[in-house]
Amino acid sequence: MAGNTTGVLFQLSSFGESHGAAIGGIIDGCPPGLTLNLEAVQQQLRRRRPGQSALSTSRNEQDQVQWLSGMFEGKTTGTPIGFLLANTNQHSNDYDALKEVYRPSHADYTYQAKYGIRDHRGGGRSSARETACRVVAGSVARQLLELQGIRIVAFVSQVGKIRSEQPLQLPTEAQVDATSVRCPDAAIAQQMEAFILELKEKGDTTGGVITCMIEGVPAGWGEPVFDKLHADLGKAMLSINAVKGFEIGSGFGAAEMLGSEHNDAFYTDGNGKVRTASNHSGGVQGGISNGEIICFRVAFKPVASIRTVQETITTSSEKTNIEIQGRHDPCVVPRAVPIVEAMAALVLADHSLRAKAINSSYLG
Amino acid sequence: MAGNTTGVLFQLSSFGESHGAAIGGIIDGCPPGLTLNLEAVQQQLRRRRPGQSALSTSRNEQDQVQWLSGMFEGKTTGTPIGFLLANTNQHSNDYDALKEVYRPSHADYTYQAKYGIRDHRGGGRSSARETACRVVAGSVARQLLELQGIRIVAFVSQVGKIRSEQPLQLPTEAQVDATSVRCPDAAIAQQMEAFILELKEKGDTTGGVITCMIEGVPAGWGEPVFDKLHADLGKAMLSINAVKGFEIGSGFGAAEMLGSEHNDAFYTDGNGKVRTASNHSGGVQGGISNGEIICFRVAFKPVASIRTVQETITTSSEKTNIEIQGRHDPCVVPRAVPIVEAMAALVLADHSLRAKAINSSYLG
Amino acid sequence: MAGNTTGVLFQLSSFGESHGAAIGGIIDGCPPGLTLNLEAVQQQLRRRRPGQSALSTSRNEQDQVQWLSGMFEGKTTGTPIGFLLANTNQHSNDYDALKEVYRPSHADYTYQAKYGIRDHRGGGRSSARETACRVVAGSVARQLLELQGIRIVAFVSQVGKIRSEQPLQLPTEAQVDATSVRCPDAAIAQQMEAFILELKEKGDTTGGVITCMIEGVPAGWGEPVFDKLHADLGKAMLSINAVKGFEIGSGFGAAEMLGSEHNDAFYTDGNGKVRTASNHSGGVQGGISNGEIICFRVAFKPVASIRTVQETITTSSEKTNIEIQGRHDPCVVPRAVPIVEAMAALVLADHSLRAKAINSSYLG
Amino acid sequence: MAGNTTGVLFQLSSFGESHGAAIGGIIDGCPPGLTLNLEAVQQQLRRRRPGQSALSTSRNEQDQVQWLSGMFEGKTTGTPIGFLLANTNQHSNDYDALKEVYRPSHADYTYQAKYGIRDHRGGGRSSARETACRVVAGSVARQLLELQGIRIVAFVSQVGKIRSEQPLQLPTEAQVDATSVRCPDAAIAQQMEAFILELKEKGDTTGGVITCMIEGVPAGWGEPVFDKLHADLGKAMLSINAVKGFEIGSGFGAAEMLGSEHNDAFYTDGNGKVRTASNHSGGVQGGISNGEIICFRVAFKPVASIRTVQETITTSSEKTNIEIQGRHDPCVVPRAVPIVEAMAALVLADHSLRAKAINSSYLG
Repeated sequence: MAGNTTGVLFQLSSFGESHGAAIGGIIDGCPPGLTLNLEAVQQQLRRRRPGQSALSTSRNEQDQVQWLSGMFEGKTTGTPIGFLLANTNQHSNDYDALKEVYRPSHADYTYQAKYGIRDHRGGGRSSARETACRVVAGSVARQLLELQGIRIVAFVSQVGKIRSEQPLQLPTEAQVDATSVRCPDAAIAQQMEAFILELKEKGDTTGGVITCMIEGVPAGWGEPVFDKLHADLGKAMLSINAVKGFEIGSGFGAAEMLGSEHNDAFYTDGNGKVRTASNHSGGVQGGISNGEIICFRVAFKPVASIRTVQETITTSSEKTNIEIQGRHDPCVVPRAVPIVEAMAALVLADHSLRAKAINSSYLG
Repeated sequence: MAGNTTGVLFQLSSFGESHGAAIGGIIDGCPPGLTLNLEAVQQQLRRRRPGQSALSTSRNEQDQVQWLSGMFEGKTTGTPIGFLLANTNQHSNDYDALKEVYRPSHADYTYQAKYGIRDHRGGGRSSARETACRVVAGSVARQLLELQGIRIVAFVSQVGKIRSEQPLQLPTEAQVDATSVRCPDAAIAQQMEAFILELKEKGDTTGGVITCMIEGVPAGWGEPVFDKLHADLGKAMLSINAVKGFEIGSGFGAAEMLGSEHNDAFYTDGNGKVRTASNHSGGVQGGISNGEIICFRVAFKPVASIRTVQETITTSSEKTNIEIQGRHDPCVVPRAVPIVEAMAALVLADHSLRAKAINSSYLG
Repeated sequence: MAGNTTGVLFQLSSFGESHGAAIGGIIDGCPPGLTLNLEAVQQQLRRRRPGQSALSTSRNEQDQVQWLSGMFEGKTTGTPIGFLLANTNQHSNDYDALKEVYRPSHADYTYQAKYGIRDHRGGGRSSARETACRVVAGSVARQLLELQGIRIVAFVSQVGKIRSEQPLQLPTEAQVDATSVRCPDAAIAQQMEAFILELKEKGDTTGGVITCMIEGVPAGWGEPVFDKLHADLGKAMLSINAVKGFEIGSGFGAAEMLGSEHNDAFYTDGNGKVRTASNHSGGVQGGISNGEIICFRVAFKPVASIRTVQETITTSSEKTNIEIQGRHDPCVVPRAVPIVEAMAALVLADHSLRAKAINSSYLG
Repeated sequence: MAGNTTGVLFQLSSFGESHGAAIGGIIDGCPPGLTLNLEAVQQQLRRRRPGQSALSTSRNEQDQVQWLSGMFEGKTTGTPIGFLLANTNQHSNDYDALKEVYRPSHADYTYQAKYGIRDHRGGGRSSARETACRVVAGSVARQLLELQGIRIVAFVSQVGKIRSEQPLQLPTEAQVDATSVRCPDAAIAQQMEAFILELKEKGDTTGGVITCMIEGVPAGWGEPVFDKLHADLGKAMLSINAVKGFEIGSGFGAAEMLGSEHNDAFYTDGNGKVRTASNHSGGVQGGISNGEIICFRVAFKPVASIRTVQETITTSSEKTNIEIQGRHDPCVVPRAVPIVEAMAALVLADHSLRAKAINSSYLG
């Protein structure tokens, strides 16, 4: 209940600060008998890792997962999967200056207000490093979903004012990873990269948007009232560091539309499958998947760690200036792509189990 | 786990279809000793009720709450508060035509896909009538928060392409309710109303945006990882019928901003209180309230029930046309204002109890 | 989290005080498409009802369930089933004398200590009347289990010092209900009844034991660590008013046994089914059902409401005497039989859904 | 929901098999600012450890806790406390013979039935080694409770047919640990030890009973309906390996008592504190603590691993004999004492936080 567990049936509980001994977690509720591809998990971690390209910090974390339980002879056993990632590349001294200062738009002050104590090194529990555990668990969830023909692809669709068009179909992960900024539109990607490098030079940062598309989810997942599928997706995305907004399908654009434009007409396709002619619903109607592509967008604020001198206060409420050192990204969205995918996978794996328990199949 | 309960410590569990005997719910976790103003609950229900103005349907539900338990001599006892609202103004026959047809952009098809059975009368459980229970429970939660000096005000800030400016301070409920469209900017409100009446004439509908502002929440509410305060607010809003997007503070606009513009500088005010000079964070940093005004926006799609003839399919997957009769609003946002406030109150009351249990006060 | 909800996937949330407007609840997670026998629910309520026989009080509650939602054309829809039981036969005046006195071994003092307020009429929320909601929901759960060939039968096996033998097979409900004391051993039942009537005459009360036997549960239900099947059964039984002990299989007798006596040898029966030669395990091994008869025993203390004058204190901590009036049973166990069955059904229905979600069939 | 987490606000999630890389867990919800005595945790682990005395196996696990997160400069931070215990003293080969055999009264068959796969080495997840994580977390919980003046002491009160008397006051831990069998009555302890050594010689095992007494719990902890304090204690105890029964206060003895004997009369003591003259309630009335000593008893079956040849079946359902090798205790109860205390501490720490959130203090 202290907010470190996500999911109802497929659950991740995570622990760890950026500068403690390790971060890690427990994946509970993963069905037995699944042959896990551990290298695929590492690959997702590499996608999240700092230092992948010139766009990112030079901090280099190896992030080799130590798997501690829940597997036997290469298969999941149905028991909890414990894992950890050692914290090896710590520069705690970078943070000594921050012990008695609240960094603007970081969680320093709110943690202090909440707990009366905080681990100031690298943001402690509020560090983005915590998201590595999400990528590990999300990658396990994704493998479960792939067995059911579900494919999740996220990509950068906006950096600053530079935007790409919404594709009709999912790009491939290869197309996404073809550019360092993880935008599958190569021309737009080039502009984004140029903008980010310019900001890096200046010590400033920018926000951005990630679009996520999911295909293969059957009609009928999601619970209709408080745990609507897109409500759970929204919460999962909003729980990622730096996220300020979430929209599904037509999103905020829906506010400007007429019902006669917005409604998705049903038809039956050649295979007798119920389909909709348009997809303003974003694959979810009444909180339940309708079998179309699930499509949502996630807005990230600019990284708060900028190199400019900023006014702030000390922990004793005195005025001071701060100049943040250390290794920080000018734009977080390229590295956040696997995190968005991971959180989407966790939500869907959870709802796949919930659908299994609750949906009409019970009475055959 | 079937998604009909919201909250961890302050909980609402709801039940009921629009055309069954009654809807209702259980409010569990409400602290003992609270003197409830039951008339204030009725007042919020009246704000949600259809038929309030020319902008709305003529369906007239009395919605007198029957309080069944949890109070003694006017005060809450700490035990669950059961309540119900009888369904009195049912025109079930209006829906006979819908028994074997899937209405476009309604939940008819997805309910059928999920459960293999559905109560087609008025949308059954997917009816917006379900939100009346949220208003009842939210109104109780709000009274709890008011004792702590917390004020929640939502209002319509966009209808179609017509938008009002973001105010710096909260309007009053009287200012919001001064116009039927519930936009406190009178000039903009007039334009919105004209637009809605025009659509009503045509049998078409429009989307809109509700802005919600909350003052008085102390710093330190919210759980830092998966249950971030704005993640819970986002989920709560996305669980309301017709909502397609949620953003807090700078929201999607953050994607276009630089870190040097976006960061909220800390300062200490005349009373020694920690404040921020700007509020792009929207009152939440690292998932925890920072004492500033919490401000978020909720996007609603246009009502799916339009009077135009639409193409769709039958439950046997055959092509057909549908012309929806019955009483439907051309724009749902004016009536959704108390629902947004109610869900915000439920989330905050829950986090007030969680803060009480978890925050630093335990060890004094 | 305030303890008024039981179950993870198949849930009952209950509300209501004995002398408020009504008691009731929400059954959430019941699979769709189940044809409910509502008369069978009433029949279980009749078995719980006061005033069934000379052994019981003369308080006569009709307890006609009002079903409010979750069913359509006689079948469950998968949405929450709201129900209520009006409180019609209230003699609130009986309790006026109790307003400022703590009855010995009742919950008067602890409620006051916990909540700082209490509804003193008839024990309020701590009244045994609350168990009627358990019987309603348990009866729904039981119907779900019966479809899977599961049979639950509880009966009185001890009253005071009078005990019956442990049968090898389940008695029928008819055999149990053949005597007012609900002990299927007619000779022993006669002794029990005589003892209870003697106590009734004296205004005294006695404790007793209920044995519950369940057949048809397949191997593989229950979660292995904290939510062991018998741990959940134990909690469910200990949550019933007046219960002081729970044991499964060999129970407390196991303390006196040797491993060489206690172990249940496996064998394969004529149908190739794995069986155990003895059943000291009581049908559960390592927290998971093994396919044998689940057998447990539940100890009830004597009813606290006796007619003798007792020493106690007032709510202002002053010494006083109390002489409890009103209608009270000399022995609660005959009427508790359907409550034990109901709670067992709720636990098993919940674990049936959990098994469906978690067990090996996922990748099957 | 897969049963590897216990508690609502103060939670332990555990993972790990006896012969995997490590076991461990996450303690979530521990209040911030608590100075933890890590050596006291190790001391409780030593009390649980095999090989402490001639009564136990010679398996020697060091069980040095690795603390991974949640503490800063010696104090808890309010964030999750991750910990692990490496599995160092594994004799996996001891278990090769068990790969294709179901050991009688172990969880081998039920795990296979549930998951379709099992880690047969040392019982995997069903191994008693899992309880070491409970002792770690329980020891943290206990330190939180000790700050509030709560003392938890468990001891062996029965081995086979040898029983000690119920003391009126709690013994000290020193008195309990004075004998290897952990029975504070020295004369009885001697008989118990002699009996256990005799069984060890024969390769047989015996059951036993542990009594647990808790003082200092204020009146008002526990939730009144489904989460009664003794129901949660009962579930926690029944979740410990080998436990077959739980009783509180008068327990099964209550069945034989009259109301006039059983009722606990209230009085006010010299300090104005509400007390009861007797304590048949065991410190809990109506599911809520009443301020008296909480006293309960836990029945353990004899260890299933006996040295005698036993009949059983293979995983292919064929008849076979089994002769269990390896290191097994003749009686588990002396080592289970700290486990009972740990589970009691977890339940009470959880209810201390729940009381903080829910009880009357909210409105001051």
